[in-house]
Amino acid sequence: MARKATIVVFSGDYDKALAAMNIANGAAASGMEVTLFFCLWGTLLLKKRGGLVRGDNWMTKLFGLMERGGIKGARLSKWNMLGLGKWMLRRMMRVKGAASLEDLWMTARQFGVRFLVCDLSLEVLGLTPDDLEGVDDFVGVGTYVKEASESEITLFI
Amino acid sequence: MARKATIVVFSGDYDKALAAMNIANGAAASGMEVTLFFCLWGTLLLKKRGGLVRGDNWMTKLFGLMERGGIKGARLSKWNMLGLGKWMLRRMMRVKGAASLEDLWMTARQFGVRFLVCDLSLEVLGLTPDDLEGVDDFVGVGTYVKEASESEITLFI
Amino acid sequence: MARKATIVVFSGDYDKALAAMNIANGAAASGMEVTLFFCLWGTLLLKKRGGLVRGDNWMTKLFGLMERGGIKGARLSKWNMLGLGKWMLRRMMRVKGAASLEDLWMTARQFGVRFLVCDLSLEVLGLTPDDLEGVDDFVGVGTYVKEASESEITLFI
Repeated sequence: MARKATIVVFSGDYDKALAAMNIANGAAASGMEVTLFFCLWGTLLLKKRGGLVRGDNWMTKLFGLMERGGIKGARLSKWNMLGLGKWMLRRMMRVKGAASLEDLWMTARQFGVRFLVCDLSLEVLGLTPDDLEGVDDFVGVGTYVKEASESEITLFI
Repeated sequence: MARKATIVVFSGDYDKALAAMNIANGAAASGMEVTLFFCLWGTLLLKKRGGLVRGDNWMTKLFGLMERGGIKGARLSKWNMLGLGKWMLRRMMRVKGAASLEDLWMTARQFGVRFLVCDLSLEVLGLTPDDLEGVDDFVGVGTYVKEASESEITLFI
Repeated sequence: MARKATIVVFSGDYDKALAAMNIANGAAASGMEVTLFFCLWGTLLLKKRGGLVRGDNWMTKLFGLMERGGIKGARLSKWNMLGLGKWMLRRMMRVKGAASLEDLWMTARQFGVRFLVCDLSLEVLGLTPDDLEGVDDFVGVGTYVKEASESEITLFI
């Protein structure tokens, strides 16, 4: 039976997503079965970009305006400086030939990393499955617990 | 022997506490033995509310004024916006019928989730055991390490 | 074979570094083999202090000015208040006789805790191995995954 890694992606920050995807791909490359479990702010990384204001009440609509979502909308956990810090980090990564977050995301999908989304988080944020892209399944915390309890590596990012 | 989950609750943020309690209850519901280990800012989640300024010197007293503690005093890790974001999140959760943090906390106690507090953190914050409520035991890092090393799931939140 | 603990030190925050080192030393004291894997902001904790502006282009030079690095340059994840909060926390720790972060760091080295640094993070931040001190090795994510998958305790801090 394959060894497993199960990572909760809670934060939605750009730099933490970089760490999560690097670890996920490293684990997948070494033959592990990797599951990413996106919850709360992390689910916003999977949000489709677009001009439409989504959400089913004024609060979720307002939140959708504030938090545009997707990799493009993600901020750094520190030194974001209204996006300047993120721009600098992305540029330094490009200069050094490091894979971008978009690249890492694609590699993860090719490696068969599973992208699960917490159904409760989705509901609370006023989003529907159609608002996200690249999701393998919407699951409850029970699914996470089962996967995690069988995993050699469990992280909360 | 029961499988175990051991979670360090370090941050004290409202949204991260939500994640910790959801995972704790999910694990307990599936029959795991769950231990929450509250340290530093996380211990403030267990602080009794009240008008008295606690602490044994001016720094801890001042800190007690700034950080009122308890679930009520906890902030969001992002989008807190002086409490507006937290109010919105709580409201969205209520609208969607999601269990509140207070509910999750009570469920955890009914499930027998263990609430341990790092004794060093308590001391450093100038608090005494009487300032907290709902604590099963005050322990050192050695107890945490023992529990975590026997656990299938280990997280730092 | 010894039991293992593998901790990713991602954040670089002073208070989270305290937690990481306390857990690392607690695990080492109980006979576990402990590996700290410093990445992104965490690597800055290992940066030598000094007047020289390091970095190989204007962005990394500018960043070096903003983020002086080392334990002295680290901030609290909350309540930092331009350093006042950190000063208060350090003072409260001293008053209570708690080991300082510098002490914990030295203890960790005496316990044989391994200090590994993510080579990609170093590169992206425009630093060279000479800019850091107290590093046992510079490694890729593959090394982390191997260690973590053999570990009883895996944390992301």
